[in-house]
Amino acid sequence: MKIYVKIMPKEGVLDPQGKAIENSLKQLGFADVQEARQGKIVELNLDIKNEEDALALTREMSERLLANMVIEDFEISIIKDDL
Amino acid sequence: MKIYVKIMPKEGVLDPQGKAIENSLKQLGFADVQEARQGKIVELNLDIKNEEDALALTREMSERLLANMVIEDFEISIIKDDL
Repeated sequence: MKIYVKIMPKEGVLDPQGKAIENSLKQLGFADVQEARQGKIVELNLDIKNEEDALALTREMSERLLANMVIEDFEISIIKDDL
Repeated sequence: MKIYVKIMPKEGVLDPQGKAIENSLKQLGFADVQEARQGKIVELNLDIKNEEDALALTREMSERLLANMVIEDFEISIIKDDL
């Protein structure tokens, strides 16, 4: 089963990469950009058939390794290939 | 309007960060992990009301700045806050 974990800086946490993207886009003339924030995404391929088990395991992996819960939030989504 | 751009390494392109995550998860005992890949995500807040205009602009920004089209693929999604 394929799962995405999206990890973003928490609201209020400094996000220098996002700020750099925002400034670069504005300098390139994209004046409609109000804000840019950068996060990371981890795509996992799990040897698990059951959705609930996969979600629970991914939550544990996110809290233990993938995200830094002090400054980041994460969000998990299952990828349905056959839709 | 809020838009996400998800940028992942193309299939076949080396992804050392993803490999490092995969190895760390396995060392932590998460044996069900078959593969991990890491990409980045850019959340944009655009001063545009029309969805088609926002998508077209974001595609242009992704090609010109956000993604490196030689080694990365990108995917755009609009975030509906009011759903």
